[in-house]
Amino acid sequence: MDSKKNYTKKTPESCKIFEKSKRLHVNGVSHNIRFFEPYPFVTKSAKGKFLVDVDSNKYVDYWMGHWSLILGHAPVEVKERVQKQLNDGWMYGTVNKVTSELSEKIQSAVPVAEKIRYVTSGTEATMYAVRLARTITGKNIIAKIDGGWHGYTSDLLKSVNWPYNTAEGSGLVTNKKIVSLPLNNLEKSFAVLDSVKKDLAGVIIEPVLGGGGAIPATKEYLYGIQQYVHKNNSLFILDEIVTGFRFRYGCLYQTMNLDPDIVTLGKIVGGGFPIGVICGKKESMEYANSHIKTKENRAYIGGGTFSANPVSMTAGSTTLEILKKKKSLYEKINGFGTKTRKEIDKVFSGKTITTGIGSLFLTHFLKNDIATIQNATDAAMCDVRLLHKYHFDMIANDEIFFLPGKLGAFSDAHSQADVKALVSASERFLQNTR
Amino acid sequence: MDSKKNYTKKTPESCKIFEKSKRLHVNGVSHNIRFFEPYPFVTKSAKGKFLVDVDSNKYVDYWMGHWSLILGHAPVEVKERVQKQLNDGWMYGTVNKVTSELSEKIQSAVPVAEKIRYVTSGTEATMYAVRLARTITGKNIIAKIDGGWHGYTSDLLKSVNWPYNTAEGSGLVTNKKIVSLPLNNLEKSFAVLDSVKKDLAGVIIEPVLGGGGAIPATKEYLYGIQQYVHKNNSLFILDEIVTGFRFRYGCLYQTMNLDPDIVTLGKIVGGGFPIGVICGKKESMEYANSHIKTKENRAYIGGGTFSANPVSMTAGSTTLEILKKKKSLYEKINGFGTKTRKEIDKVFSGKTITTGIGSLFLTHFLKNDIATIQNATDAAMCDVRLLHKYHFDMIANDEIFFLPGKLGAFSDAHSQADVKALVSASERFLQNTR
Repeated sequence: MDSKKNYTKKTPESCKIFEKSKRLHVNGVSHNIRFFEPYPFVTKSAKGKFLVDVDSNKYVDYWMGHWSLILGHAPVEVKERVQKQLNDGWMYGTVNKVTSELSEKIQSAVPVAEKIRYVTSGTEATMYAVRLARTITGKNIIAKIDGGWHGYTSDLLKSVNWPYNTAEGSGLVTNKKIVSLPLNNLEKSFAVLDSVKKDLAGVIIEPVLGGGGAIPATKEYLYGIQQYVHKNNSLFILDEIVTGFRFRYGCLYQTMNLDPDIVTLGKIVGGGFPIGVICGKKESMEYANSHIKTKENRAYIGGGTFSANPVSMTAGSTTLEILKKKKSLYEKINGFGTKTRKEIDKVFSGKTITTGIGSLFLTHFLKNDIATIQNATDAAMCDVRLLHKYHFDMIANDEIFFLPGKLGAFSDAHSQADVKALVSASERFLQNTR
Repeated sequence: MDSKKNYTKKTPESCKIFEKSKRLHVNGVSHNIRFFEPYPFVTKSAKGKFLVDVDSNKYVDYWMGHWSLILGHAPVEVKERVQKQLNDGWMYGTVNKVTSELSEKIQSAVPVAEKIRYVTSGTEATMYAVRLARTITGKNIIAKIDGGWHGYTSDLLKSVNWPYNTAEGSGLVTNKKIVSLPLNNLEKSFAVLDSVKKDLAGVIIEPVLGGGGAIPATKEYLYGIQQYVHKNNSLFILDEIVTGFRFRYGCLYQTMNLDPDIVTLGKIVGGGFPIGVICGKKESMEYANSHIKTKENRAYIGGGTFSANPVSMTAGSTTLEILKKKKSLYEKINGFGTKTRKEIDKVFSGKTITTGIGSLFLTHFLKNDIATIQNATDAAMCDVRLLHKYHFDMIANDEIFFLPGKLGAFSDAHSQADVKALVSASERFLQNTR
């Protein structure tokens, strides 16, 4: 069965609505990655593990709201608490109590969060982290990782998509202040850092390369970079927007005995509502304190109109409360990930490497004699078109949804049966593409 | 009665919670402006025109969620529609139908919105507008207005707070690419623009200077800048995040026969939920289209995890629906503004100028022989400390809330009686400070 035919046949209403959306919106979407050929389906509702489209197709969702929904879609406790909050308003623009409740939870789980500030998105959080590093050090260069993704801030839009070491677009005047390192290669990374040593404000790294291919950084790599950075009096920033509270109740860095200065959080800690968090050691964060710093030496960190709004705070606080109580959750979804990585690679008999850690995973189709996936260049050398086809075919034929090309995430709403269904769908894909 | 004593006496619970908040958060807040001495009260709930604090004090609110709540707090129709949406999920991360519904409303009310993209905050919207201008023109310099406020994007953090023409903090590497113009002074503005003419990517202006002092730009000024910019093949960007749908069902630029290339929206169009909008002429917006542009010539405009989420879209769409139906609303709240400006200045017998337009207003206490308030420098020359005292005294003694120093906004929840109460509170303030 032709997947595209199958897809268009069962999504006529999506097709119609998306035609309208194309007239109204650039690319028809409000995030480039949400478009896929021939057109993305239009979601009507979402509950538990399912996304339901306007033609009433029901997809098992592994995209899970850009991986923000660790409890699945619309978990009852979160929903009820937010609905209740709405009776008391949703936009105070003033200090509220639930912000401190969420912060106490984050602080008790993430030791580096001595001081916290909420912002509206991950993009804003990394923008502020970079600004803080430049302010504290008085230096300008930020090092990131090839394929590292920290949102759309002008300060970090380089070396995100292959080919690396180029700007991600035009109109970016700060690009000369960014350098980029290959993940998990200390020798080459040190060489790049050496070349900008004197003006190095900081390094920002995702402990698991997310958009770049679900590739975990090794403990040795992260530790090596940290030691270099600290010896150089630069800042070590970990971007845990994807990884924070994803594998355990806390951050990933804590399992590796690391000592970051600043950590950014988002996604899970907002329970699916808009949030970004910048937190870190008091001595660093206080550079944003307008009571003790002047215009000349402060990092101007705002928050914005929607920062710490009571809805995002309530959803985040409730989500962390559930995660803390339900101790078996992480074991369960991390186990699904481990099993999935093993079983999918078994299906493709060594022609794939499914990377990831815990509940995050992505299947790379090997070509060009790549034998391991250690960094984003290795991932880009794989058959990315085949990966897109694999994901699209599952949408079309199996009602399994990955955002084509992007890593998948298990949530508490998934079950052992979903792992099996994913493996069966992979087997069918293999048979059809033979 | 001493206002500070009065305030601390009636806000013991706020005091306690804010102590905790100070331990957890930089400055105790997630937005510098939300702090005021001795400590900001902590909001428990909000309904209609009221903010209620944790000590059950009930303030008539003129801050109105950073001026985003034109219908007042928690209007029933919006609340019910959002609560219903929550049953169907709040974070799809995929295309949804209600996005097109909101876009159709915006497009029919704002002609320049030929193409739209949603983002998560106003900070993101202006960041993308600037990026687009630089991409389209291949030039680097952005001109803004002294005291102009476009959020925290690294690209526009200069000349926001007095003294103007300085960076708003350290760690901002793009500051050399920003120049700043005095509002309503074409001669001086042209001189600055002339000095950067060859590398001028665009000009970004709020039609009413918001944070800078509630000062309307004159039609002549905006038209003059527009003509200069267009003759120079640079982009004319209007930031209508505060003014869009604030005075009429549409934008303010439409009343002045202007022809912007890009308009940014936010606040009201999200109904109090996180939103930013970048919209404009098709020829400009299409530079963000990844189908027709490559890495080299595209403006990399994303949207982010939370862009076009069904909650913000539903709240925004419902709000516009109500605004369109309730035709008398704008007349009513604009009238309150006109009356307030007149009556307050009468109370202070010519020693104040209450600026603003329609439902937005701010009282400037004159000193240093300032006779008119035409731009942010004029506003900064006024007695800003007395303005803060005026606002704080009303919080303490009259349970009327302005974020100290910031402009006020009427909403549909306010009434004629509130205008009277505000005038009486101003009279009491005058008597007490004599």
